[in-house]
Amino acid sequence: MGLKTKSQYIESLRKMKPTVYMFGEKIPNVVDNPRLRAAIEATGVTYELAEMDKYRDLIVTQSPLINEPINRFTLPPSSVEDLVARVKINRVLGNRVGTCHQRCTGLDCLSALAIVTYDIDKKHKTNYYDRFQEFLKYMQKNDLTANAGVTDVKGDRSLSPHEQPDKDMYLRVVERRDDGMVVRGAKAHQTGSISSHEIIVLPTRALGKGDEDYAVAFAVPTDSPGLIHVVGRSTLDTRELDGCDIGNVRYSKYCPTVIFDDVFVPWDRVFMCGEVEFAVEMVARFSAFHRQSHGGCKSGRIDCMVGAALTMVDYSGTGKAGHLKQKVIDMIHRAETLYGCSLAASYEGREEPSGTYFIDPVGQCIQDP
Amino acid sequence: MGLKTKSQYIESLRKMKPTVYMFGEKIPNVVDNPRLRAAIEATGVTYELAEMDKYRDLIVTQSPLINEPINRFTLPPSSVEDLVARVKINRVLGNRVGTCHQRCTGLDCLSALAIVTYDIDKKHKTNYYDRFQEFLKYMQKNDLTANAGVTDVKGDRSLSPHEQPDKDMYLRVVERRDDGMVVRGAKAHQTGSISSHEIIVLPTRALGKGDEDYAVAFAVPTDSPGLIHVVGRSTLDTRELDGCDIGNVRYSKYCPTVIFDDVFVPWDRVFMCGEVEFAVEMVARFSAFHRQSHGGCKSGRIDCMVGAALTMVDYSGTGKAGHLKQKVIDMIHRAETLYGCSLAASYEGREEPSGTYFIDPVGQCIQDP
Amino acid sequence: MGLKTKSQYIESLRKMKPTVYMFGEKIPNVVDNPRLRAAIEATGVTYELAEMDKYRDLIVTQSPLINEPINRFTLPPSSVEDLVARVKINRVLGNRVGTCHQRCTGLDCLSALAIVTYDIDKKHKTNYYDRFQEFLKYMQKNDLTANAGVTDVKGDRSLSPHEQPDKDMYLRVVERRDDGMVVRGAKAHQTGSISSHEIIVLPTRALGKGDEDYAVAFAVPTDSPGLIHVVGRSTLDTRELDGCDIGNVRYSKYCPTVIFDDVFVPWDRVFMCGEVEFAVEMVARFSAFHRQSHGGCKSGRIDCMVGAALTMVDYSGTGKAGHLKQKVIDMIHRAETLYGCSLAASYEGREEPSGTYFIDPVGQCIQDP
Amino acid sequence: MGLKTKSQYIESLRKMKPTVYMFGEKIPNVVDNPRLRAAIEATGVTYELAEMDKYRDLIVTQSPLINEPINRFTLPPSSVEDLVARVKINRVLGNRVGTCHQRCTGLDCLSALAIVTYDIDKKHKTNYYDRFQEFLKYMQKNDLTANAGVTDVKGDRSLSPHEQPDKDMYLRVVERRDDGMVVRGAKAHQTGSISSHEIIVLPTRALGKGDEDYAVAFAVPTDSPGLIHVVGRSTLDTRELDGCDIGNVRYSKYCPTVIFDDVFVPWDRVFMCGEVEFAVEMVARFSAFHRQSHGGCKSGRIDCMVGAALTMVDYSGTGKAGHLKQKVIDMIHRAETLYGCSLAASYEGREEPSGTYFIDPVGQCIQDP
Repeated sequence: MGLKTKSQYIESLRKMKPTVYMFGEKIPNVVDNPRLRAAIEATGVTYELAEMDKYRDLIVTQSPLINEPINRFTLPPSSVEDLVARVKINRVLGNRVGTCHQRCTGLDCLSALAIVTYDIDKKHKTNYYDRFQEFLKYMQKNDLTANAGVTDVKGDRSLSPHEQPDKDMYLRVVERRDDGMVVRGAKAHQTGSISSHEIIVLPTRALGKGDEDYAVAFAVPTDSPGLIHVVGRSTLDTRELDGCDIGNVRYSKYCPTVIFDDVFVPWDRVFMCGEVEFAVEMVARFSAFHRQSHGGCKSGRIDCMVGAALTMVDYSGTGKAGHLKQKVIDMIHRAETLYGCSLAASYEGREEPSGTYFIDPVGQCIQDP
Repeated sequence: MGLKTKSQYIESLRKMKPTVYMFGEKIPNVVDNPRLRAAIEATGVTYELAEMDKYRDLIVTQSPLINEPINRFTLPPSSVEDLVARVKINRVLGNRVGTCHQRCTGLDCLSALAIVTYDIDKKHKTNYYDRFQEFLKYMQKNDLTANAGVTDVKGDRSLSPHEQPDKDMYLRVVERRDDGMVVRGAKAHQTGSISSHEIIVLPTRALGKGDEDYAVAFAVPTDSPGLIHVVGRSTLDTRELDGCDIGNVRYSKYCPTVIFDDVFVPWDRVFMCGEVEFAVEMVARFSAFHRQSHGGCKSGRIDCMVGAALTMVDYSGTGKAGHLKQKVIDMIHRAETLYGCSLAASYEGREEPSGTYFIDPVGQCIQDP
Repeated sequence: MGLKTKSQYIESLRKMKPTVYMFGEKIPNVVDNPRLRAAIEATGVTYELAEMDKYRDLIVTQSPLINEPINRFTLPPSSVEDLVARVKINRVLGNRVGTCHQRCTGLDCLSALAIVTYDIDKKHKTNYYDRFQEFLKYMQKNDLTANAGVTDVKGDRSLSPHEQPDKDMYLRVVERRDDGMVVRGAKAHQTGSISSHEIIVLPTRALGKGDEDYAVAFAVPTDSPGLIHVVGRSTLDTRELDGCDIGNVRYSKYCPTVIFDDVFVPWDRVFMCGEVEFAVEMVARFSAFHRQSHGGCKSGRIDCMVGAALTMVDYSGTGKAGHLKQKVIDMIHRAETLYGCSLAASYEGREEPSGTYFIDPVGQCIQDP
Repeated sequence: MGLKTKSQYIESLRKMKPTVYMFGEKIPNVVDNPRLRAAIEATGVTYELAEMDKYRDLIVTQSPLINEPINRFTLPPSSVEDLVARVKINRVLGNRVGTCHQRCTGLDCLSALAIVTYDIDKKHKTNYYDRFQEFLKYMQKNDLTANAGVTDVKGDRSLSPHEQPDKDMYLRVVERRDDGMVVRGAKAHQTGSISSHEIIVLPTRALGKGDEDYAVAFAVPTDSPGLIHVVGRSTLDTRELDGCDIGNVRYSKYCPTVIFDDVFVPWDRVFMCGEVEFAVEMVARFSAFHRQSHGGCKSGRIDCMVGAALTMVDYSGTGKAGHLKQKVIDMIHRAETLYGCSLAASYEGREEPSGTYFIDPVGQCIQDP
């Protein structure tokens, strides 16, 4: 147990048996499929950094929960330093893989749950927070990667979930049993779903009276029965099948829709169920954390683009062209503005009742329950 | 002879035997390859409109040269009305195919040559204009499509062609014979090269002393010996191989690099050879005409995007969202600005010494030889 | 009678006795007040051009109405050529005075009335068009300048005029008599009101049932009893009192609010009264013509700014700075885009039922009554 | 001594006798001139806050130099907390006065000198740092306001100072005496020069060999013999003479050119003299600190504009208009981006050799001597 190496991470995925379709065919071996592997390699870098002297101090920290060294991607922030470290790690990673490393959303979910489950319990005398802490220990002890199941397919945006003609436009509970609940629906844009061990599901919008079945948060393994990952097309996707021969590109991403075809969730993995008034806080916390992560990773990706642009300028002998210099300056300006705002939101963060730290979202509406 | 129907156009391409490579393989049958066919279909619409009552008057006109009804895509403008018609046809076409119809660049070349060959003759007592008129008659009589071979691969932009370490960075004459000349080099971004019957080559930049071998303009059939069309990758290219199943999309484009591996050009197809001081005028005239064409076709393409955007808004029930309305307004604003400027440049056009009409390029530098 | 010289224009203003306040004081002599004179000089250039060989053909034309040579600023367009000439004159003027010449809005009103009075008569069997033709003859015979009284002070934009708590937020009829009507209210942003001989009033927005008293169009002399011109403050206004010593600036503008304190209007000067459904067409036609005028004059003003910018660059020795070149290019781009769209809208103009020509407003909603 | 109240600050200015011209006349009484007083009132707020319970902790701190409570506007930052406090105070001030409070530039100069004088001494064995510390004690003990004399009139930007035809385009030493030096030249855009007790002069650009006489930094009282403040015109400047009757506006700014007509500076007030290679560092440090200040004050000013915009929307009943909401959102976006980047640069600050803290300027070139 404890910290995984990159190869241990990849082998741990190999042991899983998710149901995956791509280009209309079933993919039995996810790990060795060139297109999917390029994305797994990108997530793998979050493990690789923990093995490197240069980055260990940045990405490895002591867990106050299990009292062991853990990868920060399993740590809800418990100080301003933790908030700032999130941003800096993401810039290093974005800069290194030049694409989405796919491990930030899981942490964004863990961080949101570490705040909101506590708030729900306080109001409803539920025990979501304890359940979540147990789940969090499991994530930390095994250095797992989680994926965020947030974005529903939505249907008609002018209608609330329970008003939709098709009730499955938003993920919902279709059965409640003694040992757990059964959910149905789908989550779209699930970048990295099969590079992950767990999928953490949150509501994707504010909910109201009548939406109780849609107000659910939980976690399930990515190879749970009934979970179907349908990997969509993307630019030059078949070229990636050749093994990413595009210059020195080794990393990529893919973006499935994950169908929940009556998936069973044991109660100890359920972190919200029916408390509609907390849906908006859950998604607002998640979104705020996710924007904070992006402030780091996207500026790191722009670093790569700047390098690519300067290389092209160098190759084409246009280094003295003022309008090209200006374009590169604009790219740097964009990257540093993103990064600066993300750092500021982190340094100005505050402690929440649960002890978890939250960024300063600048007037983003967090409704108190 | 005379106007071709769309099917006659496609059959005329079937008779040609160009050397084509795509995805690393030789493509013996261009016309029936789904990816290439989708582009040929787009060019086909320029023939189809001439068969339709609704558009015949817009696209068919009488040739002052051969005194027969011709398709405007073989007519260098000889009046302000012709200039305006170019823009309006391109909007109809862009609007209809929602992509590049690939027949404008050939006409842009014919229009530039109709002006510059005359100017060269006036100064150098050459007979390029007469040669060009004979070629133009051939194009008109057979209702042919031409492709513009303008963009060289360029190499180091800070060096002139003859200063390049690799002399083939710009297309050039490598041999002069009694019956013609032999050229070597490559032209990039040759959208529609194998949807065309002829490739018209022009210089791509201003040239100076020492660049004489690079100052060439000529026309050759797309299946000339030594001509190699290498079709490049593009977004979702393999998906197009399935026959463009993307909703109702029937039209597409592809973009080869065309290699001139010692291609022979008979003298009567040569329209400039060594008059370096006219290179800038040739490319400036071509560019001005090409921008004018774009003012029509690109606004037509935006029309399609506006329709797509409004359909998405309709499907997702977001029709009342002010920020989405604003985005659609911005798209329309962009389209009408493009179209308006292109129309104005046409209405303000003037007659050139050769009798061909040129747009008002607003201070774009056309150096007089 | 007939064309006025610039000095005749200024003397004709001297004969008028408008009620004018500025800086809290009554201004008995408008023509010799340095601040107001600088604006009168700008309008004066519209008369001056008619005296200059270089511009006479552009600005002087034959009136189909009075069969005499007139200044185009008194001519509603009766052909595409007239529409185009409007734009080109305005660019010459904007370029020459570098500010607002203040004579375009009056023509925009005349042009709108030449279309809409005819449409109203057609529906309501009124005789507004004949009244307007008589007024137009008077304007042309005496080469007069008119000002557009369009923008009401408006109050609460979410309420229609008759719903306003203060009934005078929009100009309205307060009394109907045998010989004419009495109007009350105010028009804001009346640039050039006292550089004009006449004020032409139009509604400023769409009107509906209950707004009948507000649906009025008419013309009155600028020194009519009850008309009060209150000239507002503006940047460096007191500096203009020193006689515009700012470098070589000779022209300026001022912007009064004109109060209609129960002004009497004889019926033969009334061009609309109560036909609420035509208010939107009146203001939409006026706005479209006014935008067309701006496409010319604003691009002419940018020409001056470009010259000023290049002079500053020259003085400060920064001519080689790429980012400054880019800024000047952006200014030129803006000017030519404005001008191009305005020309295109003119060239694509159409004849209206009254015989007056209207631009192509590109989908701007002109509701047919 | 110690902290001044706002009224003590104003009385301290009344005791000074600067040479001031405005509107072509000499102004004997600066403090009671309505236009100048409105600006003095704005600076006065930096004293007023120190008297208010709500803000005292933010703006008052203990000086490590004189061991007394001081106003932060006399404190070069000696910690990250100090850097952050600079930004937050400026936002409070910008938000409160809605214009330039004019006290930040002096602190920006003090902060730059606290770093660079130390670096110069280290290389040249000079004693500028000690001189500066003595001056700083004087500033802190008397709670004085300083103005930044940085921007020279410059002349031809393509020439270095000593190459200028007119040697006075940049401020320079014209005489060196036993007791001090005599300087000649002018500094432009000296916002708040006569709201200040001292003027701190720095070079405005990188200097090189031959520019030795121009490489000077020093401080002199604003009423030193030979110092002439010429207050320029500004928008609605005469209206301010009526005592800022514009709604509830009580604060304003003015912007003189300060002429140094052979001003004597004793050696103990000279902080750089001839060390040309440090000019770029001096101005780069100042500029970085000044941008950091702006990140606070400008976002505070936008806060006022947002309030004004929302009030206008409220008055005109347009609160539901989506495009207006978007404009207000854009204003807030701009303010928070400025503020966020300024905070991030502060939180990421580092200690310099002198012990003063400097922001992270993100790759802004600070050349090491």
